[in-house]
Amino acid sequence: MIYTRAHLEALDRSDPLARFRDAFSLPPGVIYLDGNSLGAMPKATPARVARVVNEEWGKSLIRGWTDHQWIDLQHRIGDKIGRLIGARPGETLAADSTSINLFKLLSAALHARPGRSVILSETGNFPTDLYIAEGLVNLLGKDRQLVTVPSEDLLDHLDSSVAVVMLTHVNYRSGLMHDMARITKAAHAVGALVLWDLAHSAGAMPIDLTAIDADLAVGCGYKYLNGGPGAPAFLYINKRLQPDFQPALSGWLGHDAPFAFEPSYRPAPGISRGIVGTPPILSLAALEIGVDLLLEAPMAAIRDKSCRQGEIFAALVRQELGAYGFTIISPQDATLRGSQVSLSHPNGWPIMQALIAHGVIGDYRAPNVLRFGFTPLYLGYSELWDVIAILKQVMNEAVWERTEYQRLAKVT
Amino acid sequence: MIYTRAHLEALDRSDPLARFRDAFSLPPGVIYLDGNSLGAMPKATPARVARVVNEEWGKSLIRGWTDHQWIDLQHRIGDKIGRLIGARPGETLAADSTSINLFKLLSAALHARPGRSVILSETGNFPTDLYIAEGLVNLLGKDRQLVTVPSEDLLDHLDSSVAVVMLTHVNYRSGLMHDMARITKAAHAVGALVLWDLAHSAGAMPIDLTAIDADLAVGCGYKYLNGGPGAPAFLYINKRLQPDFQPALSGWLGHDAPFAFEPSYRPAPGISRGIVGTPPILSLAALEIGVDLLLEAPMAAIRDKSCRQGEIFAALVRQELGAYGFTIISPQDATLRGSQVSLSHPNGWPIMQALIAHGVIGDYRAPNVLRFGFTPLYLGYSELWDVIAILKQVMNEAVWERTEYQRLAKVT
Repeated sequence: MIYTRAHLEALDRSDPLARFRDAFSLPPGVIYLDGNSLGAMPKATPARVARVVNEEWGKSLIRGWTDHQWIDLQHRIGDKIGRLIGARPGETLAADSTSINLFKLLSAALHARPGRSVILSETGNFPTDLYIAEGLVNLLGKDRQLVTVPSEDLLDHLDSSVAVVMLTHVNYRSGLMHDMARITKAAHAVGALVLWDLAHSAGAMPIDLTAIDADLAVGCGYKYLNGGPGAPAFLYINKRLQPDFQPALSGWLGHDAPFAFEPSYRPAPGISRGIVGTPPILSLAALEIGVDLLLEAPMAAIRDKSCRQGEIFAALVRQELGAYGFTIISPQDATLRGSQVSLSHPNGWPIMQALIAHGVIGDYRAPNVLRFGFTPLYLGYSELWDVIAILKQVMNEAVWERTEYQRLAKVT
Repeated sequence: MIYTRAHLEALDRSDPLARFRDAFSLPPGVIYLDGNSLGAMPKATPARVARVVNEEWGKSLIRGWTDHQWIDLQHRIGDKIGRLIGARPGETLAADSTSINLFKLLSAALHARPGRSVILSETGNFPTDLYIAEGLVNLLGKDRQLVTVPSEDLLDHLDSSVAVVMLTHVNYRSGLMHDMARITKAAHAVGALVLWDLAHSAGAMPIDLTAIDADLAVGCGYKYLNGGPGAPAFLYINKRLQPDFQPALSGWLGHDAPFAFEPSYRPAPGISRGIVGTPPILSLAALEIGVDLLLEAPMAAIRDKSCRQGEIFAALVRQELGAYGFTIISPQDATLRGSQVSLSHPNGWPIMQALIAHGVIGDYRAPNVLRFGFTPLYLGYSELWDVIAILKQVMNEAVWERTEYQRLAKVT
């Protein structure tokens, strides 16, 4: 079919998620397709953060830890995130950064699988996942190693040397999505654990960690969870693994009796042992608002709209931009794709800078990828038409060739 | 001399720091002696945090990383904290939690001193310091060990087996302060590094890490720096050690080219390699306000007033509370004492709960310590009189024996 803006306007009118748009504050004149890098701000966030600062900190001071349950926040928000990913209560924590959580879980996974030396991952996994594994392997020495193989060869490398398979569910660059159930099952068949990085999927689609008998997972608070810049991340540890989970980052708040100030570390029972130091309360409070909002929306409807938006976006690229040398690098099949469509183009960097200057915010990933993320709670269908129209103009008028777009520094 | 409230009122009238009191928001009816657990809120903080949420995140979205320099915050705030501790620019970062920073620096210290197996610390050091060292040693295995000895025996245990000496400058329980210069020099003489935990001294007294040729340090953002609940911590790495500093927590933002998304980790030059993942921007913004305020005050005047407050407080305990069984466990000599005076009492726990219920907030540290912290920017001299008067009343009327104070849960 040939899409028109009118088609997309009609979809907007019948969109069951349309009411959520008003729950977010978005600047005028901007079409935002970068919620997979930093989610938009829920309108309820400023008041909540102000209350934590003025009332909870300002008036309760140290008593806030009890009077305002700061001490429970990591568990409370963790369990809410857990509902988004099919975890049971007591399996998820809001904590630290994704990178640090990766270290916690990888080190514990190696400890839980003595005699196995390999962390198996994929070439092209998000760099921090690989970097953290690299750092851990270097630290431990001996025969520990990080083995990375192309995605399609992963299952061939599963054997009794593998302690843990570490994969990102949805690839940050291409949007290619792994079959979590299949890989988890195959890893378990050889006695390996699996650590899933849900950075690009939690909050974007239904995930059921319990159903697939997942082992370990981490994810990001500031992308689809709309927790704000640098929001704390999360970690998941299946209950069956918690008793044997050995924290390498054995900080005082993960101690069984943190306020007894005992001389030796004894890990707290359950998920609490994933806690290290004192968490940033202001940032946690903002994260909770983002998660609460997401819990109001039916996840199946989010995924449905996201798939449809991806399909329409890709169709519009083919329909309108055929002359400009873009390649769609995301899977065509929506069931294999996360909530994004990525294009490659040799001039990807200046093209994205020009787009941003014209009010369309996507992002760029080296070496040549333009990434467009779909966040169904606040992105309309007809906006996709406008994105393509502006991109067409940028290409048609060679706007991206202007010096200013060539020069802009790469820092986000 | 016999102190009266009038003496203390006179001191308040001539206090060169008196004007800072108005820069903090403190609830009415409260005397706060727990700024060493959670500092009070600067009045400028709510507006700054609101601006970051509403303007920077809400309007700039992902562009905030560049447009509002979020990407530089850890360095910018780090360098400001550096000015409080005598670091040179490029030696300090605001990052993560104290516990996680301890892990980063301890692991790098062991790496920098191959062939040496010992982390030397003191019995009674803050638990998280010992726990983190314990976790690291367990992770590394081999012959690595954490050795803890009484404070007075530390120097006797310095030999060529020691890779790093890890000490808290001011003891959290007693307030006893180490001679940083002397211990650093002695450790260097045997080729060991020293890692100082400045949690109870940064922002409370002049510290000059450059003058003592310090190696490594960490500290807390939410105590004397008034950064808010769970504010990010800081870490310091002397420039001479940075080239050989090997990050075990090798996250993407500590990479030399984080946005090149290279497959392998290459640490950034300089202090940047101490960064791991994406930092919590809202909490960092609040921290910066606390640090900025502290930078306006002359540190020598802060220390002078703190010493004097400690002296007066201890004198008042002796003068007014002699009958009630308190023991002053902090050093009598102000030069050996941090910014606190701690008392022990067999009924310490319910006594502190009763005090708090009567508007005097100090804190309790197991097994029997009542801790009173002095924060000269917002604590007046005459308030010390009132604290003692209320404590006397609590003891005299046996208020602390009431069931409700016996029962209150220990969670802060």
